[in-house]
Amino acid sequence: MTQEREIIAVNVDLSCDRNCEGCEKFFDCQAPYKLEIYLRRRMDKARSVLSNVKYKIAVAAGKGGVGKSTLSANLATALAAKGYKVTILDQDFDGPSIPRMLGIMGKKLKISDEGILPVEGFMRIQVISTGSILSDDDILTWFHDMRRNATEEFLSHVVYGERDFLIIDLPPGTSSDTVNVLQYIPKLDGTVMVTIPSEVSQGVARRAIHLFQKAGIPVLGVVENMSGVVCEECGAVNHVLGSGGGEKLANDMDIPFLGRIPMDHRLSSAMDQGVPFITQYPDSPAVQALMGIVSKVEETLLKDRSAVVS
Amino acid sequence: MTQEREIIAVNVDLSCDRNCEGCEKFFDCQAPYKLEIYLRRRMDKARSVLSNVKYKIAVAAGKGGVGKSTLSANLATALAAKGYKVTILDQDFDGPSIPRMLGIMGKKLKISDEGILPVEGFMRIQVISTGSILSDDDILTWFHDMRRNATEEFLSHVVYGERDFLIIDLPPGTSSDTVNVLQYIPKLDGTVMVTIPSEVSQGVARRAIHLFQKAGIPVLGVVENMSGVVCEECGAVNHVLGSGGGEKLANDMDIPFLGRIPMDHRLSSAMDQGVPFITQYPDSPAVQALMGIVSKVEETLLKDRSAVVS
Repeated sequence: MTQEREIIAVNVDLSCDRNCEGCEKFFDCQAPYKLEIYLRRRMDKARSVLSNVKYKIAVAAGKGGVGKSTLSANLATALAAKGYKVTILDQDFDGPSIPRMLGIMGKKLKISDEGILPVEGFMRIQVISTGSILSDDDILTWFHDMRRNATEEFLSHVVYGERDFLIIDLPPGTSSDTVNVLQYIPKLDGTVMVTIPSEVSQGVARRAIHLFQKAGIPVLGVVENMSGVVCEECGAVNHVLGSGGGEKLANDMDIPFLGRIPMDHRLSSAMDQGVPFITQYPDSPAVQALMGIVSKVEETLLKDRSAVVS
Repeated sequence: MTQEREIIAVNVDLSCDRNCEGCEKFFDCQAPYKLEIYLRRRMDKARSVLSNVKYKIAVAAGKGGVGKSTLSANLATALAAKGYKVTILDQDFDGPSIPRMLGIMGKKLKISDEGILPVEGFMRIQVISTGSILSDDDILTWFHDMRRNATEEFLSHVVYGERDFLIIDLPPGTSSDTVNVLQYIPKLDGTVMVTIPSEVSQGVARRAIHLFQKAGIPVLGVVENMSGVVCEECGAVNHVLGSGGGEKLANDMDIPFLGRIPMDHRLSSAMDQGVPFITQYPDSPAVQALMGIVSKVEETLLKDRSAVVS
């Protein structure tokens, strides 16, 4: 038997090559040339394009499939229903589902001399998504540089105009896709972290929260999605994915718990059909939960803003 | 109003720079130097390391959160229960959940003079996962080159030994992470595509199937996961995520439909606790469905192999 040693890293070179954007220590790094390169190249443009957007919030998740896009779409709809002007930036390159959810499948992004023009869906919600460029059967694999370039285009060359809310549907996880968005976007007002109740999911959600904290972005709170299924037959609540994981995570990490949203087959089919669930079933437990979450987010943002002299 | 034009590409340069591994046209490309570079640099090593693995199958999904890792872990357990020697290669860098599901949390990968040694879990299933390198609170963002390097290490520098099955839990989606694995691994015997019933999910699943077909990898079939919840109270089946999407996808694309697995809260909690669900609840509908799927996969592989003179 040969000697065994514990592996502590796999081919990871942590030395500085001044390629700040591709660096895993970006948010930790205090090197003076980091901000210089960063600000000069990228942020100025994004700052000017987004200067008339009042609140920029991200919807994030430690892993895919927890309902991040569904929450983004419903959050946008709920805010639009309250009279706000809302834009969704769909940064999920591999599964851009916002256009289908908001009933604008097949409508393409256009470009004018001022830049890329968002597609407008119901309640005048504006959408920027790679799903509005490619058709369903296109199999473009988004390689690293393409993703970064698309992120940059979406944050620098879009005609956002005057908006109350920009909701950014982040890629799942803590990969470079997520980091790229956080690097480019100036002064994100906060992020909503979506998780499902099961224990397995909390490890990745915790890592994602750490990432936002490192990046200096306020975590507005945790939403526990897919939190029980109400039986259509007898009304019993079935906790198929366990229960309480989201609240426990929030408590452990000392961040607000925003609420739990149960699963509802009507929600899934509304999303499939691209119709606004919240206006169709205003009395359902899922919509009630959602509206509570929206109110909490709204409150936090307004309070934070009024406390800051900017 | 200025002139509007439809956008057909976002900063995507399709010209050849001979950087084959990072190229989105890899599987389409017929350039003679592609195979030359590819074979010489990478495949020889992986081929020799994997030479004593009888069957190599991937578990894939168009998007995250559809139960790909759960299926991988259960597939491995079911095969191990049938007496096969099984290794799981967990290629999900951002959410490596296989170690927790197989009860080997905290056990670390070791290295010997021959290479990386897998961690052995219950039923002697061997696991290779980045989850066995990092602790839960490490927030390493896996940038592009790090992912590729880790993929290469896991396919070239692991002591796999004599195995009947290598099950590869692929990253979700059709991103470069997935493509990197498909590029490196020699002669994959097939892939199992996991999807959930809702319509929204079929677009991304369809794209993933196209990717495998382009890469010349047989798609063994489609599994519809999270296919209904059986109420614990009254036994009624609730189709919270719709129903039939997986079978429709299989029919549309003319590939086998392997079966549907219902949601079961016991499955979720078994996975949380790292215990083998299939041996605990052999009579549950989920396990019955799973065993049917395993038999179909086994049959197809054995038939294909006996038909080929190699």
